[in-house]
Amino acid sequence: MIVGILGGGQLARMLALAGHPLGLHFRFLDPSPTACSRGVAQQIQGPFDDEAKLLALAEGSDVVTYEFENVPARCVAYLAEHANIYPAPRALEAGQDRLFEKRLFRELGIDTAEFLPVSTPQALALAVKQLGRPALLKTRTQGYDGKGQVMLREGQDLAEAWAAIGGVPAIVEALVPFERELSVIAVRARDGEVRCYPLSENTHRDGILRLAVSRPDEPLQGLARGYATRLLGHLDYVGVLALELFQQGERLLANEFAPRVHNSGHWTIEGAETSQFENHLRAILGLPLGRTEAVEHAAMVNFIGALPPAAEVLKLPQAHLHAYDKAPRPGRKVGHATVRTPDRAVFEQHVEALQRLAAGAATDKNH
Amino acid sequence: MIVGILGGGQLARMLALAGHPLGLHFRFLDPSPTACSRGVAQQIQGPFDDEAKLLALAEGSDVVTYEFENVPARCVAYLAEHANIYPAPRALEAGQDRLFEKRLFRELGIDTAEFLPVSTPQALALAVKQLGRPALLKTRTQGYDGKGQVMLREGQDLAEAWAAIGGVPAIVEALVPFERELSVIAVRARDGEVRCYPLSENTHRDGILRLAVSRPDEPLQGLARGYATRLLGHLDYVGVLALELFQQGERLLANEFAPRVHNSGHWTIEGAETSQFENHLRAILGLPLGRTEAVEHAAMVNFIGALPPAAEVLKLPQAHLHAYDKAPRPGRKVGHATVRTPDRAVFEQHVEALQRLAAGAATDKNH
Repeated sequence: MIVGILGGGQLARMLALAGHPLGLHFRFLDPSPTACSRGVAQQIQGPFDDEAKLLALAEGSDVVTYEFENVPARCVAYLAEHANIYPAPRALEAGQDRLFEKRLFRELGIDTAEFLPVSTPQALALAVKQLGRPALLKTRTQGYDGKGQVMLREGQDLAEAWAAIGGVPAIVEALVPFERELSVIAVRARDGEVRCYPLSENTHRDGILRLAVSRPDEPLQGLARGYATRLLGHLDYVGVLALELFQQGERLLANEFAPRVHNSGHWTIEGAETSQFENHLRAILGLPLGRTEAVEHAAMVNFIGALPPAAEVLKLPQAHLHAYDKAPRPGRKVGHATVRTPDRAVFEQHVEALQRLAAGAATDKNH
Repeated sequence: MIVGILGGGQLARMLALAGHPLGLHFRFLDPSPTACSRGVAQQIQGPFDDEAKLLALAEGSDVVTYEFENVPARCVAYLAEHANIYPAPRALEAGQDRLFEKRLFRELGIDTAEFLPVSTPQALALAVKQLGRPALLKTRTQGYDGKGQVMLREGQDLAEAWAAIGGVPAIVEALVPFERELSVIAVRARDGEVRCYPLSENTHRDGILRLAVSRPDEPLQGLARGYATRLLGHLDYVGVLALELFQQGERLLANEFAPRVHNSGHWTIEGAETSQFENHLRAILGLPLGRTEAVEHAAMVNFIGALPPAAEVLKLPQAHLHAYDKAPRPGRKVGHATVRTPDRAVFEQHVEALQRLAAGAATDKNH
């Protein structure tokens, strides 16, 4: 069977690496000639809005999926006419506009921070008056990894903030003083079965995920799973979805969802019986879902900008290296390492060692 | 870094799948246009004795290795002039001739069954007289998966047996009434460090491996490890080596070694922290070796002839499918599944279920 993927970055790469042992074949469409999936799947090089290329991706593919959500909706709609596409375009659309996304959360009884839509500088001023500061101004579309958003603290000039996001339709969101960032990675099969991985506790810096730790004992697990299950059901979703949450005491506030495998779920490669990548493939191909239960302590440390020397990672006995075959560049996700061990102390030592390696690699290359 | 592999079968395929996460690139030389590594590595198509092709494999490869031992020694020698080849040609040569191999075992104090070289029908008759029956007549070179050997029971016509192996130089081996077939998978680093996986208990049928079970509690572990360590040291070996053994009470009789990753070690993909494939790559690239300790109960069931339906394997919660992307054909290794679980009863249920699936698939396709 052939799986087509829109995009050929590290998520496509890890989907292919998870799918080869199932006997699957992969092709992907990506504009970059050096897309990092090129070594593990057949590349179709071209822009995402080229209908001939989209058709080449669709033709002969048993299913088509995508590795990121910023694909123009019309391209996905075009693909859907020519291929079995999972998750369905509806899910992609629901997540592409922050306003619709937040409204959907509210409709489904999924808690969120207060927010207001703004499409003029005047509306922005009113919204900030109503929600107070600090608040976040976010473009309704095209934002990821901290792009397309401006923090509105006391003293921040609103006209400047409005200009910074390019004066496009946006939302203002009350900045909640949250304790932790969490995410739930969930998978829904074609027959409607839903399985959730343990909550991930996520640490970001400069808007980029640095560390994700599996938290199977988190008491808010049930609340998060309820949210994810409702969302997946409502969207009649097939595949893996990640729901990002802020914890505020007993509350979990939904920030956004990603209709795809997610960086905060990379620890599942070693830290779960079935990884998020394999489960996404199982779901979209109509195969039985695999186990999502936690296996021991598990975490992932991202390598941003540059990889540490492989030998330094591999000499940690419980660490696993995942390099993305990408050239180093400041701010770029070039790989990650996972840790899995039954021993709490060993776990913490490994996570610290990997964080030091990640910081060292970034410093060496960026200066 | 680029790793060149002589051969593009399932062992090369699994080496590549283990190596992509380390950021490695792979190319392989194989005469078949449909070699099953073609989807995960760059193929050079051609015979193993074509010097131009061997040069193409060597050029730009940081290291070259091989996935099976029946490569003509002169090809490996040629390659060694143009590339860093691991394990060294010497190890390959030592294992290519059953007589030299058995003599080497004896030299190193590694126990074996009684054997005698035979190169004429007269010598065969004498050898059988001396060793008794049943015995095995095996060609000195080119035998694998039960090929190139004839069982000499009472009544077996010796001239017929001699003709059956083509009248080539051979050995006769006393057939020992063994209790179990075991193997030890060992890896040796460039700096001489040796690590061994737990013993595998192996079940063959029709000369083909069907089942391999990790036996970390086997009391003969130390004896087997001693044998493997001596052999690896003597050969100044770098990479993974498999030593096949027959257990006879407290004795372990060495049958043969394979200078490569081995079918009886496939359970290490899930059943050890670091698989035999990753450890082979780590060794030949001079990277630190990974852990070889057993993780829970682990086993592998081979799929011979045809794969069972993927859904049947994947609905077993602790099973992992490894399909080789090969067309079905009677007697052909087309995939395997592994099981890993801390629960003994669950483990046994899974192994039985997989064996039933393996038998069912073979029957469906071969008749």
